[in-house]
Amino acid sequence: MAQDYRPPLADIGFLLFDVLRAPAHWQTLPAHAGTDAALARQVLEEAAAFVAGRVAPLQGPGDAVGCRFDPATGAVTAPPGFADAYRDFWQAGWPTLSCAPEDGGQGLPWLLEGVLYEMLSAANHGWTMAPGLLHGAYECLRHHGSEALRAAWLPRVASGEWLATMCLTEPHAGSDLGRVRTRGTPVAGDPAPEDGGRLRVRGSKIFISGGEHDLSGNIVHLVLGRLPGAPAGPKGLSLFLVPKVLADGGRNAVACERIEEKMGLHGSPTCAMRFDDATGWLVGAPHRGLAAMFVMMNAARLHVGLQGVGLLDAAWQKADGYARERRQMRAPGRRHAPPSGPPGTAAPEADLLADHPAMRRILDTQRAWIDGGRLLAYRAALALDDARHHPDAGARARAERWCALATPVLKAAWTAQAFEGASACLQVFGGHGYIREWGIEQIVRDARVTMIYEGTNEIQAIDLLARKALPDGGAALGGWLDDLLAECPDDAARGRIAPLADALRDATRRVADAAADDAALPYRVADDYLRATALLLLAWAWERIGAVAPPGDPRWALPARALRERILPGFAASLALVDGQVRPPPD
Amino acid sequence: MAQDYRPPLADIGFLLFDVLRAPAHWQTLPAHAGTDAALARQVLEEAAAFVAGRVAPLQGPGDAVGCRFDPATGAVTAPPGFADAYRDFWQAGWPTLSCAPEDGGQGLPWLLEGVLYEMLSAANHGWTMAPGLLHGAYECLRHHGSEALRAAWLPRVASGEWLATMCLTEPHAGSDLGRVRTRGTPVAGDPAPEDGGRLRVRGSKIFISGGEHDLSGNIVHLVLGRLPGAPAGPKGLSLFLVPKVLADGGRNAVACERIEEKMGLHGSPTCAMRFDDATGWLVGAPHRGLAAMFVMMNAARLHVGLQGVGLLDAAWQKADGYARERRQMRAPGRRHAPPSGPPGTAAPEADLLADHPAMRRILDTQRAWIDGGRLLAYRAALALDDARHHPDAGARARAERWCALATPVLKAAWTAQAFEGASACLQVFGGHGYIREWGIEQIVRDARVTMIYEGTNEIQAIDLLARKALPDGGAALGGWLDDLLAECPDDAARGRIAPLADALRDATRRVADAAADDAALPYRVADDYLRATALLLLAWAWERIGAVAPPGDPRWALPARALRERILPGFAASLALVDGQVRPPPD
Repeated sequence: MAQDYRPPLADIGFLLFDVLRAPAHWQTLPAHAGTDAALARQVLEEAAAFVAGRVAPLQGPGDAVGCRFDPATGAVTAPPGFADAYRDFWQAGWPTLSCAPEDGGQGLPWLLEGVLYEMLSAANHGWTMAPGLLHGAYECLRHHGSEALRAAWLPRVASGEWLATMCLTEPHAGSDLGRVRTRGTPVAGDPAPEDGGRLRVRGSKIFISGGEHDLSGNIVHLVLGRLPGAPAGPKGLSLFLVPKVLADGGRNAVACERIEEKMGLHGSPTCAMRFDDATGWLVGAPHRGLAAMFVMMNAARLHVGLQGVGLLDAAWQKADGYARERRQMRAPGRRHAPPSGPPGTAAPEADLLADHPAMRRILDTQRAWIDGGRLLAYRAALALDDARHHPDAGARARAERWCALATPVLKAAWTAQAFEGASACLQVFGGHGYIREWGIEQIVRDARVTMIYEGTNEIQAIDLLARKALPDGGAALGGWLDDLLAECPDDAARGRIAPLADALRDATRRVADAAADDAALPYRVADDYLRATALLLLAWAWERIGAVAPPGDPRWALPARALRERILPGFAASLALVDGQVRPPPD
Repeated sequence: MAQDYRPPLADIGFLLFDVLRAPAHWQTLPAHAGTDAALARQVLEEAAAFVAGRVAPLQGPGDAVGCRFDPATGAVTAPPGFADAYRDFWQAGWPTLSCAPEDGGQGLPWLLEGVLYEMLSAANHGWTMAPGLLHGAYECLRHHGSEALRAAWLPRVASGEWLATMCLTEPHAGSDLGRVRTRGTPVAGDPAPEDGGRLRVRGSKIFISGGEHDLSGNIVHLVLGRLPGAPAGPKGLSLFLVPKVLADGGRNAVACERIEEKMGLHGSPTCAMRFDDATGWLVGAPHRGLAAMFVMMNAARLHVGLQGVGLLDAAWQKADGYARERRQMRAPGRRHAPPSGPPGTAAPEADLLADHPAMRRILDTQRAWIDGGRLLAYRAALALDDARHHPDAGARARAERWCALATPVLKAAWTAQAFEGASACLQVFGGHGYIREWGIEQIVRDARVTMIYEGTNEIQAIDLLARKALPDGGAALGGWLDDLLAECPDDAARGRIAPLADALRDATRRVADAAADDAALPYRVADDYLRATALLLLAWAWERIGAVAPPGDPRWALPARALRERILPGFAASLALVDGQVRPPPD
């Protein structure tokens, strides 16, 4: 009975082409001047067809069957259908969408890759984890790998023929990468590691998504570890490339020890990996591993924010579909005579769930988060493309600022909303929501991990406030808020957003002043500060949407109303919580 | 690695004996005058020992193995250990704790049964579902069963030797009981149903917790259905008793068709049941089934509120234990030199998670909800005992009002908090929270159902506002608020609670006035109204706790501070959302 996710191409196109006018934007970038609306639409239509036809149908089985681990061989088998769909995916060229032409890529804007992964995650979060990890590995190798490493590994990572992992976390260390113990020891007689000499990599890693599976013929692991004599802490970390299968076809000393039983995401194996003096090579400079690994941090976090948007949309589609077909009791305040129940029953008159205010509230509120989050993520993706390709250095810097400040907000606020909102959508189903049949509870379970990985949401909030908004006295934040105001569609919109921007500026200043005597203050208020920033962004996004949406069309008017009445009052409330910590009430 | 739940006897005792002075309260009730503090403490200590020793250890296996259904026989097997623990439970007399002495019960206050089930649910929600359903069936039979029915079925339901179910929901009808189609047809030649004649019961029911299992030798089903010629809608429903095994030892025509795959609660089988002209008997008067079934609605909903408190406490215990042992990074604003990492590692200095503000915030906030919710639920339980046993009719009526208004709030707000708060506690574990090993994600999954069953949280909110607060012009609500103020520990506390009470009264009046022209208004604002009421109750509970807790003791001061700074600002925010609907901003 579960209804598969349907890519919302009309909504996506409206935001991309009508609101953001992305193709006009791309014309300003030499790298993307060839991407016009017709090409972008064609890519998105084909992507949607692949998602709906090949990936969405594997969502339920991926959860129910999950990945299987064979302790005797260490092999991991993906759920039925996953390997075939992945083969078709990479053979159709989807992983290369935004890779550079010189690496065999199609050179299309990042934004299109972002939309592809939004749809994929919404359709099947577990399946999507596998290709989702390719792009960071590609960028990392492209920017930091030596010529020899790139020649050996980059083409088949770019094409997706080989999948990749990021091996960061160790059992004792969690998010605290400074405590990583994995070691890479140069092979005696080889050149130095920075000159291409081999390393023996030894250590244990946990939470490695796709550490082992049967989706691709090889797996390229990017492993954070230490060279001999490395300084303690995060500044002593280097990055190693360690393949599952060596160039001579022999199996490297890399083993999957187990896969974790998880709350959800059963379609993606989360592996505990052991490197037993496995052969590897240094990527980038010694002790500069974090910099190499985080080269694509904004892109990776924006991908997670888009996962939040997609998962929430998938949950919303299910709840909306159910509410439009299920009748239950009389809806209050309805004046028309509702249709009767099926003939031959004692059923009294009943209204659709969608007509009950308690259900309408859930549906409209979540849709405001979906539409607004989608617009914001696409806008951030345009900034990501600008930051890479804009010919003007000032424009690149401004775009980088946009990404730096908006990305942690999108990652944290929209993943939290994906979980809470999917749970709200589950509630629309009543008892049916709690059982597997309708597929809504799977989305709640799958979505939960997005609040944790790629930097927990608490870490995102600290990143925004303590690392980005405060250190320069609010200069970057202020410039970004000015950019947002400049981008408001008209003066009326600007007049509505400016007070929010001013309130955020003022709160930032108060926190900065008080933090001089209270170093923990930013860490106590970071979550509320991020929440306020998210609501400001959401308000801004809906100004942009509202300026283009057909006036009065309930498709846009209902979520806009929910935003105004239900969501935006939280902006002042969040800042009040911040101020409550700045001036704690007397005890 | 998962740490079993430990019954928090010290906290429970503090609230019960020091804050509420429950034994002094019981002295005023002839039925409970024999329950002194020593007896109550002994009961709670033995209950805690049973919970910790026999039930808590089955929590993980109950989830991982779950219930098994054999399609060939229709048999359901509970997880390993469940049946043995249940046999010991009923043989030790636990189900009879608050049953009437004339039914073989111990006649103890309902409050002690409430605490027992709080601890049981926290330790193992799935296992606890089975005995948890006994009490409603017992009260229903006791109050509405004929003498013959009571003689045949009541003693072994009271003792717990036989378990029981409530069969309400049908596949097409959800919460809308008016659409129930199950029929009971009198057996030709028998006396009339109301005179003890047999019925043939035919119909399908879904979501039947414990509909089939191997925990007890018989299962007594209480089935909502219709007699021939019954009126349509909820006023045509009658209640039938349909046992799994008939008095002659023969198997009745009752079959489990499947058990549902659920998000959680895998230790409790959720059955789809078929009644194929099964033999049954009428309970209570014809067409008065809903009244008979809901005789114990407040008690059942209060039990669910206590499940919320217990589940949140179980999650909190896990997160608190983890945060006190796991070190990660430097905590901001800490001035002492923290201990170094283990020798021989490159680990830099690191602080306990519990010292990080983002984690402290989660732990203290959830604890404020736990302590306050526990106090409120125990206070409601005292009211429940008063409503049954107080010699003074006015006191009984006042106690009934207390329960009627507080129960939907406790059910909805504390089950929502159990889910959200358990998810917040999961976040303390980072990636470890998402895997099964630590047991925290199980609590999130198990807790989710409490927002749905026993009346969805949306239905609770409508019950509070549209059925209880509004119809009498706010009279019952006003009287209840006066009672709360009268029960404040001193004038200072009263001075802090009175503005909240006045604000709630005013909002109620504004909604009542506006609802005259806008019948849907109460349904649009019910959730926010319930939230505001919950925060008022939480503030009141902490006034009572604060008046007795040792001043400055961080055990109570930290949650009290979180309440004041993090939670209570939501009161005005919730009422503002209500007012936003009363006076919608111009479009």
